Amino acid sequence: MKNFEFYLPTKVFFGKKVLRQFPKEVSGIGKKALWVFGRGSIMRNGVYDQVKEILKKAKIEYIEFGGVKANPLLSKVLEGIKVAKEEKVDFILATGGGSVIDTAKAIACGVFAEEKIWDFYERKDFPKQALPIIAVPTIAGTGSELNNISVIVNDETKVKLSMNSPWIFPKFTFLDPTFTFTVPPDYTAYGAFDAFSHVFEVFISREYKKDCLTEDLMVALMKNLMKWSKAAMYDPTNYEARANLMWASSLALCGLSKAGMGKYRFFIHALEHTLSGVYDLPHGLGLAVITYAWMKVYKKNKLLHKFFEKVLNIKVEDKISVEMGIEVFENWLRDLRLLYTLKDLKLPQEDLEYLIDKAYHILTIWQVADEYSKEEVSKVFYTAYFGESKP
Amino acid sequence: MKNFEFYLPTKVFFGKKVLRQFPKEVSGIGKKALWVFGRGSIMRNGVYDQVKEILKKAKIEYIEFGGVKANPLLSKVLEGIKVAKEEKVDFILATGGGSVIDTAKAIACGVFAEEKIWDFYERKDFPKQALPIIAVPTIAGTGSELNNISVIVNDETKVKLSMNSPWIFPKFTFLDPTFTFTVPPDYTAYGAFDAFSHVFEVFISREYKKDCLTEDLMVALMKNLMKWSKAAMYDPTNYEARANLMWASSLALCGLSKAGMGKYRFFIHALEHTLSGVYDLPHGLGLAVITYAWMKVYKKNKLLHKFFEKVLNIKVEDKISVEMGIEVFENWLRDLRLLYTLKDLKLPQEDLEYLIDKAYHILTIWQVADEYSKEEVSKVFYTAYFGESKP
Repeated sequence: MKNFEFYLPTKVFFGKKVLRQFPKEVSGIGKKALWVFGRGSIMRNGVYDQVKEILKKAKIEYIEFGGVKANPLLSKVLEGIKVAKEEKVDFILATGGGSVIDTAKAIACGVFAEEKIWDFYERKDFPKQALPIIAVPTIAGTGSELNNISVIVNDETKVKLSMNSPWIFPKFTFLDPTFTFTVPPDYTAYGAFDAFSHVFEVFISREYKKDCLTEDLMVALMKNLMKWSKAAMYDPTNYEARANLMWASSLALCGLSKAGMGKYRFFIHALEHTLSGVYDLPHGLGLAVITYAWMKVYKKNKLLHKFFEKVLNIKVEDKISVEMGIEVFENWLRDLRLLYTLKDLKLPQEDLEYLIDKAYHILTIWQVADEYSKEEVSKVFYTAYFGESKP
Repeated sequence: MKNFEFYLPTKVFFGKKVLRQFPKEVSGIGKKALWVFGRGSIMRNGVYDQVKEILKKAKIEYIEFGGVKANPLLSKVLEGIKVAKEEKVDFILATGGGSVIDTAKAIACGVFAEEKIWDFYERKDFPKQALPIIAVPTIAGTGSELNNISVIVNDETKVKLSMNSPWIFPKFTFLDPTFTFTVPPDYTAYGAFDAFSHVFEVFISREYKKDCLTEDLMVALMKNLMKWSKAAMYDPTNYEARANLMWASSLALCGLSKAGMGKYRFFIHALEHTLSGVYDLPHGLGLAVITYAWMKVYKKNKLLHKFFEKVLNIKVEDKISVEMGIEVFENWLRDLRLLYTLKDLKLPQEDLEYLIDKAYHILTIWQVADEYSKEEVSKVFYTAYFGESKP
């Protein structure tokens, strides 16, 4: 195993009605919150009312800051920073999906950085402090509730970038699987695929390739994500399915999967960030399309074969077994209704070269562009578009 | 899954030469340390010199506090508290095995409790503060470096008890697998079995019995512990074996295994604590003997069958397959040179009834005595002694 650091200071409360523990736990961190949420789903599913009641019980004053959209925008972050400063809030409460939590994280350290916040995403600077963050996820997926990552889209340039900082670990995360009962099947699938992808990308691109504990933990995570995502899609109020999906998603990007794996690349994420940055496509859907294309282009990848063997139980011995592996994976995508090409999704074909350039730009910011040829990026995009690398 | 909390604020540095990061990380927490260690193994394996050099580099003053023995004693803890107070140290540095780290934890909160420290172990009171703790393990096993548990033996009463407190999570843990290269085969096996037992006991006694992510994570941990312990015993400087064993041991008791499992019982540990409290037997050896006896007594336990199926790959369909499961487990114990009865270990037969009483006392302190009959405890002890429940 390679050297690594592991740090996960977020305190997790998991299960039915865990918000009840909120008043007791939160009392120490402040009296006034900026309450960040999305575009109304928490109104419809009752989470809004529950949180409101809890805040009242905890005697916490709050400023509502709703309207955060999927693929969250820098402009919204800047707006939130302004409100948080004006209102002198003590902490940020995020109730929603990854975009809401990522926005809350950006605001939390943005209060001390203001317009320079984007420098953190461009990796020109690093946060030096942040307000405490409390996360109450309402969908299983990004894992933002249990890590130090935030992903934001710059509205002007349409560039979607991520920042890492120990300052943005949520202080508390309340995971109530029943909050996800009302997540519709398509978004259940998007979230599940996102979480799956966080493990899969490490699995297939890691520097350390041998059998080891971390590999087996990744296998367990991916198997469970594949199994419970299907169950949760077709039986939305199945508590065990939602609970397993939620916990697996939180653990998927918390550091366990990369422990000892050395370098790894979120190549598929880089390509997908281009799509969801430009077209506002659901992140999980974009990932599914790119992952399937990647698999067809990188058929010979030995770690993909290991994935087939350990996760899909298909021992790779020849070309046919590789095709079988892809087919079994394809079946899962079909079950999750995620089996599309970019063409099916009606993305404009004439944008392809622009997308390839943009993806290359992200790889450059990540300082890994030299590891990939433009031809490789192009091949994956063309395969994602046409179903094969040459139309 | 049942409701749970998960909290793991220790920052881990893992790999070769990770102590190099010590000065930078530790600079914020103080200038003077109580340096706790054992009975000389760190002198022989070079760890003492390395830590000394690092402390010098970090400009940290220190008071050496060596001589902690396996099954660490309350009297030693009290002595440590006195020194820590007199010398006004800022933090406790533990370099050694579980007993050293557990002693450091006891001293860290004992500084604020003095003689009342034993109340924490008897669960009559709880720590309200503690000095920061830094752990540098030199053996894989207890997992004390990545949890909030401390186990101490009261020298007067020979009772071995544990305490849990959020105050005693180490702030930093430096895990260098090469530090365990010199651990002799027998102690490698004891440590590995201890770690295995931390997962196994949850696996077989949990309230939540269904297939789930946590179960699969436990399976991955147990499989890896079984595999790498053998490798490390027979090839002591095999880095991959030592690294996997070390990381698996740290994760084994960090909260991942119990997440969502509801109630579980450390019944085997309770019985073993009696042995190592009274005879100063190595904890891991005692656990192996009791576990093997437990398995023979509780042959019909459905979760044991699940263990056979998922960890040992033996599907239980009839009595013969149960015997096969036990046999495969027995083979692992034989490989680890842990296949003994208490009689083999020359424990006095006339003590049996005394041991049974003492074990029952521990179950009482743990408030679970009503779940077990004295006959059950007796059966396991007699089986552990004679190899069968009736001599």
